Amino acid sequence: MRNICVYQEFLTEAHKAQIRRTAEALGFTPHFFALERFEEARACLQDCEVLYAHDPELLREAPASLKWYCCSYAGVDPYCKDPSLFANPDCMLTNSNCYGVTIAEHVVMVLLMLLRRMPEYEEVVRNRGWSNQLSIRSIRDNDFTILGTGNIGVNVAERLRGMGAAKITGLSRSGREQEGFDEVLPISRLDEVLPRTGNLIMALPGTAETYHILNRERIALLPRGAYVVNVGRGTAVEQEPLAEALNAGHLGGAALDVMDPEPLPEDHPLWTARNMILTPHVSGNMTLGYTCDRNVELFCRDLENYAAGRPLEGLVDRTRGY
Amino acid sequence: MRNICVYQEFLTEAHKAQIRRTAEALGFTPHFFALERFEEARACLQDCEVLYAHDPELLREAPASLKWYCCSYAGVDPYCKDPSLFANPDCMLTNSNCYGVTIAEHVVMVLLMLLRRMPEYEEVVRNRGWSNQLSIRSIRDNDFTILGTGNIGVNVAERLRGMGAAKITGLSRSGREQEGFDEVLPISRLDEVLPRTGNLIMALPGTAETYHILNRERIALLPRGAYVVNVGRGTAVEQEPLAEALNAGHLGGAALDVMDPEPLPEDHPLWTARNMILTPHVSGNMTLGYTCDRNVELFCRDLENYAAGRPLEGLVDRTRGY
Repeated sequence: MRNICVYQEFLTEAHKAQIRRTAEALGFTPHFFALERFEEARACLQDCEVLYAHDPELLREAPASLKWYCCSYAGVDPYCKDPSLFANPDCMLTNSNCYGVTIAEHVVMVLLMLLRRMPEYEEVVRNRGWSNQLSIRSIRDNDFTILGTGNIGVNVAERLRGMGAAKITGLSRSGREQEGFDEVLPISRLDEVLPRTGNLIMALPGTAETYHILNRERIALLPRGAYVVNVGRGTAVEQEPLAEALNAGHLGGAALDVMDPEPLPEDHPLWTARNMILTPHVSGNMTLGYTCDRNVELFCRDLENYAAGRPLEGLVDRTRGY
Repeated sequence: MRNICVYQEFLTEAHKAQIRRTAEALGFTPHFFALERFEEARACLQDCEVLYAHDPELLREAPASLKWYCCSYAGVDPYCKDPSLFANPDCMLTNSNCYGVTIAEHVVMVLLMLLRRMPEYEEVVRNRGWSNQLSIRSIRDNDFTILGTGNIGVNVAERLRGMGAAKITGLSRSGREQEGFDEVLPISRLDEVLPRTGNLIMALPGTAETYHILNRERIALLPRGAYVVNVGRGTAVEQEPLAEALNAGHLGGAALDVMDPEPLPEDHPLWTARNMILTPHVSGNMTLGYTCDRNVELFCRDLENYAAGRPLEGLVDRTRGY
């Protein structure tokens, strides 16, 4: 008997039927558990070779016979940082790159909110005022720098291009060319790109290399009035100097969907920083049907790869961190 | 001597040079006045055959010899409603359809804010909270109904299409096919379209026919949870029933950039309506360089048409109102 433990909250009956159909055709039996049934999932997991979940604590309970952990999230930093979570050091880890569409829509939204001065106009409206001559900017004919050219970065670039963006620069570890970008540079050239970056979008995984990659010195390299959007991991930004740069007017605004730590402590300076759009890690939330459908599709596709002994599409290099 | 009176606040030196070059090549002399120089503009206007402005009060001072009034705004309802503004009843009126890009970016922004529950998340963040499981929707695979298929409607449709919208229905007076729309229906079929409209975008001119076109009965025809965006004229929406439908939860949210009257009175129910995104008529503001450049381009192109005796591109049918 080859068993799969599925521990998820977002699955519809149709998703379960789809997983069951795929699994059974390949000789597997899936066992479904809602999040409140942790103990039952843990017990079942002892006879499973595959786990589809997003819970490090459940993974910690898996036997050495677990061969594949499919994480339904995109960010797998907790798993890469802590090898002790895997009883079997050779257990494969995959992540789920199904968040590009929803996160890109979030990025377009907050970019437009920044370019069009919405934090300030919302303040005007809260005071029932009627000033309307703040100077706005456009996506059209504007330049953008995207840190991270993965699933999210590519979806953001596609949408900015569709709205008439001028130059889109990507930065990635490899600097490998990528469709939709005018240029992709290795991240080692970041310091050279920042002084000409009026709009910076950060969509990086949380790794040792990306920790505080936007630090105090680099914030200072951005031109006056620049906008910063972060939808990757909160650890990528040094937060106190970011708040200072906003309050001093060096930056024109920022939009953070991710912070460090989350939730943000109640007295943190980010809450009150000038022209700051904070959202409580919502950009990739699992309430969107499209995201959930893709998540299940990716799992089923990799289950077929797994059964056939082919490489898994979502395979994570645990030493690299993504 | 053929004279042009230019009474505008947004022109750069480069714009003035462009107008001067175009005018002089055609045998005209342009005279430029900033808005605070109303009296001088009025005096000069007595010897002008063309006026490029956006001020009904200045137009009222024009002599019967004025042949063409180029309004730098898109909405020309004040001029169509009040024929007494024109000493010469045959004076041509043109409007400036240069606002499509900036208003479409505004529409994409507020649509995403509604679909992604930003009014509610902003409330969470103002209270320093961390709930993030509100159910969101996407532009991708979603359907949209656009009332008005002019310059604004076309630019909105193009952007929604680029972000993966499913079906885009347009409604216009003629119902004439239009690129970027899956279907365009005559506005007489509005009542049939509203019950299947989850996302309604209104970009209509202010005319007798569009007055309260979204009235109480039609708001009730929209499905529960629908979103309404208005960037045309505030008179198109019956505002009290809109506020009631929001507060009762029949509508999921609304975004109004235009209201009736403007500014909105301090005790108006729209200020506090649930899930309402109000902006003080900013979507087409003249601080955006792109909009200003197009405005001047359109004027110069029609000046060439005017000089050659060709029909003017921006010509308004004053009885129709746009």
